[in-house]
Amino acid sequence: MGQTKINLADKFSLFNEHWTPKIIGEMNGQYVKVGKGQGELIWHTHEDEDEFFLVLHGTLSIHIGDDIIHLSPGECFIVPRGVPHKTSAQSETHFLLVEPKATQHTGQIQSDQTVDVEDQVWI
Amino acid sequence: MGQTKINLADKFSLFNEHWTPKIIGEMNGQYVKVGKGQGELIWHTHEDEDEFFLVLHGTLSIHIGDDIIHLSPGECFIVPRGVPHKTSAQSETHFLLVEPKATQHTGQIQSDQTVDVEDQVWI
Repeated sequence: MGQTKINLADKFSLFNEHWTPKIIGEMNGQYVKVGKGQGELIWHTHEDEDEFFLVLHGTLSIHIGDDIIHLSPGECFIVPRGVPHKTSAQSETHFLLVEPKATQHTGQIQSDQTVDVEDQVWI
Repeated sequence: MGQTKINLADKFSLFNEHWTPKIIGEMNGQYVKVGKGQGELIWHTHEDEDEFFLVLHGTLSIHIGDDIIHLSPGECFIVPRGVPHKTSAQSETHFLLVEPKATQHTGQIQSDQTVDVEDQVWI
């Protein structure tokens, strides 16, 4: 059948980079990714893509305008398309991310942190 | 900004029915749902939709042909479109589900367990 189960702890053990999510699955034109973060990612906007976050470890902060949403393990947030945002974390956080395959890492912004769509890695 | 965080434990506290997932979010034409299950759901197929499962509590078994994939908390599985499957659980399991908004609960099969697309509930 070609499908195997995906163990999130196993996937998180395979990388250490921050703010460079890795692809673990694909469904309905979306990628399922796992990410680690500490410090912060730059402000950016995805014009045509909503992003779903579920935190699994630590606290992930999502900044939207003057609001900061702090997500603990078991908490989710959907960043709607077109909304400028950045993510930050005071200590290491692990999260699950679901977004369209075409989503650009930092929207139209290119920075040292940016991973181009074609350079994303499956683990 | 209209978006608030979603606490999965809070959502699971709001219902007890088995095999009737509730909608907790929407993104990119997909619904994010939470479900509880014990016993089993009937065999069915989604012809055009992949289904992503992440188990949060207990053990969820996904039957595909003669294979049974047992998922513990922190384990995921994507049931590809067109593949007949059923889900079962010996004791209560809680899971997160992501699938297209148009996904019919039990595919083309109508049973006592079926919840029609238009009767699905947001919590």
